[in-house]
Order: sequence, then structure tokens, then C-alpha cells
Amino acid sequence: MQKKYDVIALGRACVDLNAVEYNRPMEETMTFSKYVGGSPANIAIGSAKLGLKVGFIGKIPDDQHGRFIEHYMAKAGVDTSNMIVDQEGHKTGLAFTEILSPEECSILMYREQVADLYLRPDEIDEDYLKESHSLVISGTALAQSPSREATLKAVTLARKNGIKIVFELDYRPYTWQTKDETAIYYSLVAQQSDIVIGTRDEYDMMENSENGANDVTIAQLFKHQPELIVIKHGVEGSYAYTKEGDTYRGKAYKTKVLKTFGAGDSYAAAFLYALNSGKGIETALKYGSASAAIVVSKHSSSEAMPTALEIEALIAEQDQN
Amino acid sequence: MQKKYDVIALGRACVDLNAVEYNRPMEETMTFSKYVGGSPANIAIGSAKLGLKVGFIGKIPDDQHGRFIEHYMAKAGVDTSNMIVDQEGHKTGLAFTEILSPEECSILMYREQVADLYLRPDEIDEDYLKESHSLVISGTALAQSPSREATLKAVTLARKNGIKIVFELDYRPYTWQTKDETAIYYSLVAQQSDIVIGTRDEYDMMENSENGANDVTIAQLFKHQPELIVIKHGVEGSYAYTKEGDTYRGKAYKTKVLKTFGAGDSYAAAFLYALNSGKGIETALKYGSASAAIVVSKHSSSEAMPTALEIEALIAEQDQN
Amino acid sequence: MQKKYDVIALGRACVDLNAVEYNRPMEETMTFSKYVGGSPANIAIGSAKLGLKVGFIGKIPDDQHGRFIEHYMAKAGVDTSNMIVDQEGHKTGLAFTEILSPEECSILMYREQVADLYLRPDEIDEDYLKESHSLVISGTALAQSPSREATLKAVTLARKNGIKIVFELDYRPYTWQTKDETAIYYSLVAQQSDIVIGTRDEYDMMENSENGANDVTIAQLFKHQPELIVIKHGVEGSYAYTKEGDTYRGKAYKTKVLKTFGAGDSYAAAFLYALNSGKGIETALKYGSASAAIVVSKHSSSEAMPTALEIEALIAEQDQN
Amino acid sequence: MQKKYDVIALGRACVDLNAVEYNRPMEETMTFSKYVGGSPANIAIGSAKLGLKVGFIGKIPDDQHGRFIEHYMAKAGVDTSNMIVDQEGHKTGLAFTEILSPEECSILMYREQVADLYLRPDEIDEDYLKESHSLVISGTALAQSPSREATLKAVTLARKNGIKIVFELDYRPYTWQTKDETAIYYSLVAQQSDIVIGTRDEYDMMENSENGANDVTIAQLFKHQPELIVIKHGVEGSYAYTKEGDTYRGKAYKTKVLKTFGAGDSYAAAFLYALNSGKGIETALKYGSASAAIVVSKHSSSEAMPTALEIEALIAEQDQN
Repeated sequence: MQKKYDVIALGRACVDLNAVEYNRPMEETMTFSKYVGGSPANIAIGSAKLGLKVGFIGKIPDDQHGRFIEHYMAKAGVDTSNMIVDQEGHKTGLAFTEILSPEECSILMYREQVADLYLRPDEIDEDYLKESHSLVISGTALAQSPSREATLKAVTLARKNGIKIVFELDYRPYTWQTKDETAIYYSLVAQQSDIVIGTRDEYDMMENSENGANDVTIAQLFKHQPELIVIKHGVEGSYAYTKEGDTYRGKAYKTKVLKTFGAGDSYAAAFLYALNSGKGIETALKYGSASAAIVVSKHSSSEAMPTALEIEALIAEQDQN
Repeated sequence: MQKKYDVIALGRACVDLNAVEYNRPMEETMTFSKYVGGSPANIAIGSAKLGLKVGFIGKIPDDQHGRFIEHYMAKAGVDTSNMIVDQEGHKTGLAFTEILSPEECSILMYREQVADLYLRPDEIDEDYLKESHSLVISGTALAQSPSREATLKAVTLARKNGIKIVFELDYRPYTWQTKDETAIYYSLVAQQSDIVIGTRDEYDMMENSENGANDVTIAQLFKHQPELIVIKHGVEGSYAYTKEGDTYRGKAYKTKVLKTFGAGDSYAAAFLYALNSGKGIETALKYGSASAAIVVSKHSSSEAMPTALEIEALIAEQDQN
Repeated sequence: MQKKYDVIALGRACVDLNAVEYNRPMEETMTFSKYVGGSPANIAIGSAKLGLKVGFIGKIPDDQHGRFIEHYMAKAGVDTSNMIVDQEGHKTGLAFTEILSPEECSILMYREQVADLYLRPDEIDEDYLKESHSLVISGTALAQSPSREATLKAVTLARKNGIKIVFELDYRPYTWQTKDETAIYYSLVAQQSDIVIGTRDEYDMMENSENGANDVTIAQLFKHQPELIVIKHGVEGSYAYTKEGDTYRGKAYKTKVLKTFGAGDSYAAAFLYALNSGKGIETALKYGSASAAIVVSKHSSSEAMPTALEIEALIAEQDQN
Repeated sequence: MQKKYDVIALGRACVDLNAVEYNRPMEETMTFSKYVGGSPANIAIGSAKLGLKVGFIGKIPDDQHGRFIEHYMAKAGVDTSNMIVDQEGHKTGLAFTEILSPEECSILMYREQVADLYLRPDEIDEDYLKESHSLVISGTALAQSPSREATLKAVTLARKNGIKIVFELDYRPYTWQTKDETAIYYSLVAQQSDIVIGTRDEYDMMENSENGANDVTIAQLFKHQPELIVIKHGVEGSYAYTKEGDTYRGKAYKTKVLKTFGAGDSYAAAFLYALNSGKGIETALKYGSASAAIVVSKHSSSEAMPTALEIEALIAEQDQN
């Protein structure tokens, strides 16, 4: 069946303020560059840049930052018709990035009263969801009410209408109250998703445990809806497991790291692009890793999202050696 | 397998303050009698009185009302080892009942900062749950965090350990923010429960609709976990539907109504008692209706819970005619 | 100048639920009697009963308890035209009294989201204030916004219009956040009042100190507006100090104590009645003590407020010995 | 008497993020420069730069922005020993400035959960206050608890210790709930201050009125503590009124306006510097206006604070014509 969108992403779209003068403490950074940020926004932008047809469900403030986000995403090719403009004075989330060195990066977050977490269940449009093959849920959208309930409603409607759910765990500690709470909602949504993507640490949050084992994680999740589970282990590469029992391993590509931000989002965008393009899981793992390698070598997350040609060039170059 | 408890109920245990002088506006009532109240507490008390082995999971304040509740329930035969004593100054919920006439009853609720809604996920003890054949969940426990997450955690643990979940919808408008929110959490839990009990109006809340039809409701729920669904239609009686396709109808028994409070709780207690005693669904419907008929003819909800002999006497008396 | 009211009291009007079965823990009390309560309401009722022309500024809920309060106070002779009916679902404060013995009394308070603390500055009517000779402020009205600001506005308007301000410290710990906060607002209002009445402990709260001395307290307050300061020392009697330097001591009258509640309110009502009737400070101290002695021997606070004849009888009886 | 400080300022110290690319909507600004901001911080920095001995009372977050503020102010010569480091995760306030044209400037504020409004009464050090001749209070510090109570406590302690209070009305709508509330606290503090400085609009907020008249304002305030009142009328200049009945008018100096931010703060800094230096009110008005004229022609507020030489040069140049 032909649908209007390959992917609709749901969750936050924010502003990154990246240190112009880096390799120093942020106290000494006097200038910041503005970019669109937020995991689901980055995934949407990255997917659109790769050629997928992409929509977005989220909430942005009625201010200059909100309008910047909407303009930028529209220009990147993302349908913004379901980005609700907040009418209650909420703000755009901000992430000031500090790049002390390629290995030491930190983020100073402004996430108080942010518009994205005020998305309401009644603002989820079933007809919009029906126009997409898949729905990408960001775990952070579950962190607070009413965004939590809006997300649970979108999951229910996606299941009801046979839309594939991709759950990007995207765990950010600053918006959650307790580990128990995180584990409860992560488990609920993971069990109802078709594809789950996250780092090993994020799966540990879902299980409210430490040093979890992949085989235990997949055994538990495959009792429910999931058919494909991706677990990322940083520089050691990533694993994809299927319900049928296949395991794929993807290696990490070499790159000159500028900062670590944006790796996960670019990975997800390229992985989903490859899957949607019928390239198979093994190739999708390569696309994800290559895309992440490109983004961490650049200053931004969203603006740096690579094209398919760039990704393929990197894979070709490093795989031949 | 022999277990310590037939039923563990989870949710609120409160205080009812019932008008001593009734058939008048509460403004003119000058004296109030104190009883234990709250749907799951009433169900626990009623079940224990009927002979079931009953436990309770909830939170009570560290004050005179909290201690009264704990003493009363213990004396009624309910295990109170998992009634957590709140340490943060929360209060016992209060329900002042106004009995204008048998048909016109209203309740003035005090539900601000009530201890029962502060039950936390980390206070749910998996080992305690494992000792029971079934877990009765009250819908009101889902109304606010952290009780909501504690309840979702109990549901997950019950499923994991093969404990039957009985979901008493028990919808009380005053603790919920929006209809959307109610529908989302009611659906989530109903889909994971084995038995669902509620009035037609309560199922409408779960479906965020009006004038819903029983066949639509059961068709939707039987796609998931439920195997037995009870839908009550007031004086018109109640229906029980099984996943196998059987339908049972229970009639309402005649009684001299003093007030309408407590009908649902006494119904649930007797219905569960009959089921647990292997009396079959048809008899369980009779037990529920007879128990409700007895309680609405008396001044309290908890104190008035009937014995099996009283229930059987009423059934025998009215069924022979 | 002839004015419509001798006194307008500002603050809370609540419901007391007094144990019918007493001299036991409240856990064992099964019946409660309902009375109007709250310090300024009691003072208003007591003053009206003694013959003063009395008005009231406060906020009551739109429910059965709110209507009971309004009816009761109106019947007692208090003008209730400025008792605003809350439209936002707030509640009547409740005080369950526990009388273990005449010496051991405690109160279980329900003060969450109470209507009286939601009185707003824009609900203070300057024209109403102008119709009174004096304004009685209860310290508890300063505990939370917006009642705090409404009270500060009433103080400013009273000062502007030459209305005497009587500040009844009426300190209740459960509504205040910190001692610092209490001291700041108590000092602000005491410095702008004409008459200040409180126990030694309450003046200590105002000074954020312990074991304060009366001479220090009055030296500090007489630098500002106050002209008459009453400091109560329980069974040791009370002192009245004037700005001109006079000191009066009032003794406590003997009585058969049933409970300690209501002593301060009945004291203030009778003290103000005597002052307003031109009986002089010495006699006013006697009236206050005698009124308190009567109320602590009875079951309620408001209903038990004595008449002038009863007060005078007690004084005559005990002073002749 | 020789004291350690001429001035201690109390209130917020924040971060300004000023558009690098200006004369355009902020949506199109891609780079921002970071400066210290916030009215009392700017006044402190400006005063220190002019040669006064300056202290500061405030609260900053335990993060990169907080440390930047503290370092910058210390380097500017402000004593930062009483800048409390918040331990509860509050944030630095942010002001993104949009400069559409010299006449059209706006600010996108981040003031949710900002550290400065969490200064507590117990963090006000009386000994520190005693070391200063004067205390500058910013009106915004009154906007929320507990900063409101900390400020009221500082006012009380300053009065008690004979320290002159300078009240900079500094009204910012985004932190206040209602006009009533603003008027109540502004009046309370203005009546207890020695010098009050504000725009005509700000005095209207204090009076909860519109189009107020200066003579009414000063007649009311001179009944209380104030001895000097400055009312600013933008380009029409400013007026200073003394309790003795003198009126001084200061004109506005010509300048090439880049943006309007920072005018009031630089005015206050230079005005206070001139007064403290014994230059008299007439000269102080010139200093205030000249300092404002210089700051509005530059990109920042804090960094642009002029030296005495620059101010005197501007006055000399424009006054000779």
C-alpha cells in the first residue's frame, strides 16, 4: 500500500547551542551557534535528508525559537503540519554543549516547562498516523504528563492501525523522576513496539538493572510484540537480533571525533533509511554506524546529518581495507 | 498450588463519615459516624468476611485515621502487613455522605494529598504478590503518580508470576485530570487483566465514548488478556461474558434502599468469593447482586458487608418466588 | 462617627468535628459532632453573641460544609455579605479534635487546598472595610498566597482609612513553610497594627526566637504603630501593655476543663467586646479570661461562646472570693 | 563611619545571549554572544567599574553559567562572597535578545526555576549587610518565594541597622502572577526605602493604576520613609524629587541607539556613583542619563558599562552646545 509517509517521528524538537570556541570549559566559551536538536527531530531531519518521506508529531512554543525549529525542519523536507504550537507559554528546550575534548563532552540542559512535554493526547491525530508506514517513538516523550499519555495514545493507535512502531529508547536522565518510573514506561512501550533501538545502558534502564545481558533482554522482549532489537555497545559496535533467531553484528567505523553528540540520532536515521529501502539488516547496521561516524566528526547534530552518498563513500572506503 | 491468599486487593483505604441524621441536606446533619471506606478496602473486608484469605497493598497516613483503618481491617481478617505507613504527611481520604433520599445520595470528598495515591513502585513487594492467587486492582489507583506507576508495576509483576488480575474499574471522577488520560490507563490495564468488572458507564470511560455497546466492548477486550468480563447495568441487572463466547445474565434483587453507596464493592466481594469457591459464573452473579442488595439497605459500606449465610438466605427467598 | 460594624474579622471559617465519645484516642471515637470553627470565625461569632456589630471577610467552598458555615454565622448575627463563595473546587478546612484528657488534646487537621487560603487581593472591598471601626486579622491568613496578599492589602487599606487593626497572632504550624517566613510576615503586620494579641509562644514565632521576654517584645513593637499589646501566659494569666507605659495583669479564672480548644478565640472575642464597650483594659482582661474559662469547659468552640451575663456572673463569683 | 562597601546589590545575576547578527528576527540569528545580565548584577558591575566598593547578595546555579557569572563579577571588582551556590538544580536565567531595529527590541526570557528566585531568608547575612552604606533592592527579587521573603528580610535588617535602602523598581512582567500582587509588594518595600528609582510605568505598577501623576506618587511615598524619588520618562528625561520639596529635571543625552536594553541599569549605576561621590542630585541625573546613552549604543549591558571618564566626556560634549 502506498502511504504518504515512510516515517513519522514523535517527540521533542529543541534548540542546541553549540560552543563556537571549544576544547575548553563552557565558562570560557563566549559564543554559541544555534541548531535544531532533540533526538526525534534529528532522526526526522536525518531521514528526510536521506530521502525518506517524513512527518513529525510534537509541540513547539509560540516564540522565535519555536518558529526557527519549524522553518528549519520544513526546509529539511519534514512535514510539520502536526507540530502543534503551544498556547500556554511553554519554552523550547535548550542544550548548551560543552566540548572539553573529543572524549569529554557535557550538556547543560534547559528542560523546565518545555513545550514538547506538554503535547496532549487529544492532539494526536489518528488520521495523520494512518498515513505513515511507521512511527518512531522517543523514550523521552514518556518522561512526563501529558506528553506521556499522548505517546501512549499514539502507541495504541499505531497498534490498532497496523503501523510499525520503532522505539528509540533515547534515555535522558534529567527529565525522569525515578528509575522505577522509567523502567515501567520503557517496558510498557517496548513490549508493544516492533523495532527497539538503544544502547546497552538504555536497555539496563528499561530493566531497572545494571550490566544486563543481551540474551536475557531479547528473550524477555521477544515474548511480546518486538521482531527486531538493536543493542548498541559504543566503539565495540552494535547487534541486531530478530525474533526468528538471527543475530547481526555491526562494527563501528573509524572517524576523527570532534564531539560525541548526535551519534545515536544519526545512527537511527540511517538505519531506518536502509531498512525502509530494503537493504537488509546487515547493511542497515553499516549505514547506522557510518552515519554516526560522520556526525561525530562535525560541529552539529542536525545540520551535519549525511547524505546517502556520504554514508556509502565511508562504508566503501573502510570496508575495502 | 496452595497459596497464602486467595485475593490481594490494591488501592485506597479511606474513612467514610456517614450522616447520622439523614433524609435531609448535609448542611443540616450535625453528627457523622465513622467507617472504613474506599472500594478496594471494602472489597477486601467483604471478601474476608465471606471467608476468603485476603491481603492488601496500600498506603495509610501516620495519624489517628490511618491507625483506625489498619486496626479495623486487621480485625476483619485482612492481612495488613503490606499497608505502608506514609511518612510524608499525607492524609486519609474522607467521604462525607449525604443521603437526601434513597434515590438522591451524594458524597463530599476530601481527596487532596491523600496517602493512598502516594504508594510508590518500590513499595510493591513481588514476594507478597506471589503468595496470592489473584490481585484486585482498583481503577482509582491509576489516577495519579506515583500510585499509578505502583499499580502498573503490580500489574506487570502479576502477569510475570501468573497471578490472575481482577480489574474493578471503580471510576471516580474527582481524582482524574482528563477523560483521555482515564481512557489510556484504563485500556492499558484492562487489556492485561484476566477479569474486568464495571458498570456500563465505567466501560464508556475506558473507551472515551458514550452509550457504548457491550458486544463492541467485549470484542475489543477479548483480543487481549481478559477471559471474563462483567458489565453492570444497575437495576436492570448485570452481564458476564466469557472469552469462549458464553453470556450470563444476573438479575438485581429487591431491597429496601437506604442509600446507593457500597453497592459495587459488595457486589465485587461476593462475586469473587463465589468464583473462588468454585460456584460458577451464574451463581457468582447471584451472589454479587444479593450482596449489593443487602449493603444498600444498611447505613455503612464496610461494616454492612454480609456473610455467606445472609447472601444465600436472600437468594433463596427471592429466587423461589 | 457611627459605623455599620464594630468589628470585621478576616480569615478562615472552617468546620470542627469534635469527638462525641471522648477521653480516649480518636481511633476509638466512632461519632463526630459538627461545629463552625477557625479562629477568626469563632471571634466573629463570639463578638456577635456578646452584642457587637460584626462583619466577616473570607472564602468558603461551594459545597455543603461551606453553606453550613455561612448559615450558622448569619444566624449568629455575623454579616456574611463578604464571605466569597469559591468557584475553583477548594475545600472547607476540617479539624478533628481528639480529647484524650483535659490536659491532652490534639487536632487532626485537613488544610490541603482550603478555600480560606484562596481569598484574593481583588476580593477585598475597600468600601466594606470603611464601614467598620476595626479589622481583626488572623495570623493564619498570612500563611499562603493569595490569602497572604489579600490580607496585606486589607492591612494597607485599613491603615489608609484610619481603621484600627487588631492582629490576633493565631499561629498554626501546619500551614507555614518555615519559621523565617512566619517571622517576616508576622513582624510586617504586627508593626502596622494598633492592637496585637497572642500567647508568649506566638510572639516568639514573630521574633523567630525562643523564650523571648515581654519587655523586649513591647520595646520593639512600640517603635511602630501598636498602642496596645496583649501577651498571654496560659494559666499564669495575661499582660496588657500600652504605648504610654502602663501594664495590666489579668489572672486566669478557675474552671472545669473539658478540652483546651477555643480558649484563645473566646478570650479575644470578650476582650474586644469589653474594649469596644468602653470598659477599660483592666476589665477587658477579666472578660477575656472569664470567656476562655467558660469555653474550655464545654464541648465546642463556636457554639459555646458565652453571653455577657455568663461572663459577668463568672467574674462576680470568682472575684468576690 | 568607614565601611567595607558603598553599595550591596541584591537580586538576580543572569546570562544575556545577545544576537550577533542583528537587525533581523531572532529566527534568523544563528550566533549568540554571552554576557552577564540581570538588573542588579549590571548595577553592581557598573558601580564597581565607576569605582564604588560593591558587594552582591544572590544565588547562582552550580553549573557552567553560574561559574561564568561569578568569575565575571569578581573580575569586575564585585565582592562575590555572598553569592550563594544553589544546591537544588536550579538554573541561570537566560535572556535571548532580539534586535529588529534600534526601536524594536524584544527579549525571549528563560526564567523557569531560576536560581536567583530561590534565595532563602536564612541565607541573608546581617553581618554582611552591616558592612555597607546602602542596599540596592531589585523589584524582581520580590516576584516569588522564597526570594521574596529573603528580600523582605534584607529590607528589615537594613532598616534596623540604619543602612540606606535604594529600591530599583525593575519591573519584569514575566515573573509576576498578578498586578495586585506586584502592587502590594512594591508598595510595602517602597514605603520602607530611602531612595526609589523607576520609570513612570513602573510607578504605575506599584500603584496598580494607569497614567499616574508624579505629584500624587511622591505625595503618597513621602508620607513614609523615602527621601529621594527618581521617576524616569524615557527620552523626555527624568525627575528627582526630595522630601524637602526640591525637584530636579535631567535631560536625555543624544546617542546612536543600537538597542534599548541596559539603559535603566547603567542609569542607576552612574546615578548612585555620583550620589555616593557627593556630586549632588543634579549632577547625578546627568551621570545617569549619560551612562544610559553610552550603553544603548553598544552591544551588551554589563560589558558596556562606561567609566567615569567616558560619562564625563559625553556630558561635557553635549552640555556645551
